[in-house]
Amino acid sequence: MRILQQQFQVAYSYPVYFGNGFFEEDNPELLNFLNNASESIANRKLLIYVDKGLAEANPMLLKKIGQKLGGQKDISLAAEPVILQGGEIIKDSSDALQQVLSDVSNYGIDRHSFILAIGGGAFLDAVGFAASQAHRGIRLIRVPSTVLAQNDAGIGVKNGINQFGKKNFSGNFAPPVAVFNDFDFLKTLDDRNFKSGMAEAVKVALIKDASFFEWLEAHAVAMMKREPEAVEYMIERCAELHLEHIRSGDPFESGSSRPLDYGHWAAHKLEKLTQNQVLHGEAVAFGMCLDARYAVEMSWLKTEDYDRIVALLRQLGFILQLGELSQSSVKVKDLLLGLDEFREHLGGNLCISMLTAVGNSIDVNEIDHKIMGATIEGFAN
Amino acid sequence: MRILQQQFQVAYSYPVYFGNGFFEEDNPELLNFLNNASESIANRKLLIYVDKGLAEANPMLLKKIGQKLGGQKDISLAAEPVILQGGEIIKDSSDALQQVLSDVSNYGIDRHSFILAIGGGAFLDAVGFAASQAHRGIRLIRVPSTVLAQNDAGIGVKNGINQFGKKNFSGNFAPPVAVFNDFDFLKTLDDRNFKSGMAEAVKVALIKDASFFEWLEAHAVAMMKREPEAVEYMIERCAELHLEHIRSGDPFESGSSRPLDYGHWAAHKLEKLTQNQVLHGEAVAFGMCLDARYAVEMSWLKTEDYDRIVALLRQLGFILQLGELSQSSVKVKDLLLGLDEFREHLGGNLCISMLTAVGNSIDVNEIDHKIMGATIEGFAN
Repeated sequence: MRILQQQFQVAYSYPVYFGNGFFEEDNPELLNFLNNASESIANRKLLIYVDKGLAEANPMLLKKIGQKLGGQKDISLAAEPVILQGGEIIKDSSDALQQVLSDVSNYGIDRHSFILAIGGGAFLDAVGFAASQAHRGIRLIRVPSTVLAQNDAGIGVKNGINQFGKKNFSGNFAPPVAVFNDFDFLKTLDDRNFKSGMAEAVKVALIKDASFFEWLEAHAVAMMKREPEAVEYMIERCAELHLEHIRSGDPFESGSSRPLDYGHWAAHKLEKLTQNQVLHGEAVAFGMCLDARYAVEMSWLKTEDYDRIVALLRQLGFILQLGELSQSSVKVKDLLLGLDEFREHLGGNLCISMLTAVGNSIDVNEIDHKIMGATIEGFAN
Repeated sequence: MRILQQQFQVAYSYPVYFGNGFFEEDNPELLNFLNNASESIANRKLLIYVDKGLAEANPMLLKKIGQKLGGQKDISLAAEPVILQGGEIIKDSSDALQQVLSDVSNYGIDRHSFILAIGGGAFLDAVGFAASQAHRGIRLIRVPSTVLAQNDAGIGVKNGINQFGKKNFSGNFAPPVAVFNDFDFLKTLDDRNFKSGMAEAVKVALIKDASFFEWLEAHAVAMMKREPEAVEYMIERCAELHLEHIRSGDPFESGSSRPLDYGHWAAHKLEKLTQNQVLHGEAVAFGMCLDARYAVEMSWLKTEDYDRIVALLRQLGFILQLGELSQSSVKVKDLLLGLDEFREHLGGNLCISMLTAVGNSIDVNEIDHKIMGATIEGFAN
């Protein structure tokens, strides 16, 4: 018997741009990136996907893309931009996955070409999953168009689709080659989706950065008024904390600890139980509040800290009562089942992040179902 | 405008075992590995897939697996081993992919459980592709059962299935957590498949290691007699050279150079044109010979070296005439189309490895179609 030990590292690197008007004719960033990222002109071939909701809200977008990229002599568009239905529905079937794979085959897109995906988090997850597997990986440029996608979902390394009624059941870890966070896209976002995206900023502040939490408290009003300066800082700082977390630890999540999923076990279940009538950020706000209350019950967190969390979430317009949020469609015992599903998806032992203070968390491997059930009851109506 | 540069490395490590009888009751290696690789007993849950051809040739195999793994108190089998049709046909549809995904969902397999796949290269590619995407990656243990899978296909980092008539169109790079090369499985392999697998040993010797080529010349007769000592060294050294290549350079193939694909552009096309009637190794032997002859025509390779290559391949029983190999079903001009398809799958500029001596290769970015066409004509009948 003999053993050969295989061992190697794979390096990943990608820029995340923050700015305005990346698709305006006079903005050079996107073209500069494409020129620098390709070894030859032959490779500057793009296949572009646009989220339907975004295209409808921005009637000039497709024309702008055509003018900006279609007229370049050293870049070729494989086809007219393809519009796909965004939102969670794109992840509930494999239609989008199969369409992108088929487009890649038909248009002769190869591993050195680019897929450019412009849209919300769910849209980027589905198109990204297709890009990651066609020819074992086409280079993906993500252009997140919502607050949630720009500060969290669209800047990281995960993609996937839902299967067997399970969120993100099929997917993988595949970093993009670049992310362009274009603040202009936020202008056409409706208030409900805009607000929902701020939940992830509260989350990352709660587990990582007390001073960012203070900043959020101080700028809640400005963010609610959608003042650009406040909104842009909120997105940049939230994205920065997410990027730092990914690179500092376990980028492809081989271990069990997952602090960025704070508040998410209940959130995922709530989204599912309401067929996504409750938005991800709305569900996360509820889930964070629930787990913070549980932490108080367990004497891990001070009541004053809990009160600050509730106050900020309320100021940002989040509903924290289950009945009102789910329109009374969700039962406490059904929500509790989310704990086990969360463990199953992540694998290994149950590992839930719980707050010990604003800006600090611990991992716990056990949740007292009776106490958690009673805690949920406290938010029932 | 602001840019945050994301940058990180992901480390991979896995043992490749070489030996006999890993499924015999008194062999501790597999159990030791499982015990050391899992953080807790709860995670030692296995879902096992077996290649149908292998199960039929080894009627006691399923019983042995059940006895060895079923009776362990700290390991649980999620289900009876599942038998799936192996060979290239498993990659031609998404049936196996969907079945594995569905099994993972039904049996509550999570990211810290294991999928154990026992079979040939194509079988491992398809089951591995499913494992790599369920819950964004179940831990995969590969047990390659053929010469080709043990010395090449089953020990590396790639998996995938065919789509749109294109080999490995959908797939990704996902290293296993362990590989068990069990020489006992080779005993039931038919002569044609046994011989075919030796082509990859010739290939890796040709591009990497002249002394291994000399060893192959000296032991061709012993290998043809399937003498264990010779066969086992051939597999170990070939696997070792493949593993070294993967870790030393570009494990997930982000660049264009791909010397391990020596002779493969014509091989892939020949397999496709004959609906896999020509086996992978048989096609690779032909492809290597063809590219070696082309290298002679281009004055890169000496005729003496070419003659040695042909002599070794003939000694190992490979047919080097296209007409005889493909039963006259393949035309020269159709084979030539393989050059462009090879470039498209790998992306970027054409990059073909060509020999300059036994043990040395260069990358060329252009192939003279007229000269290559004439070279193929030379092997036509």
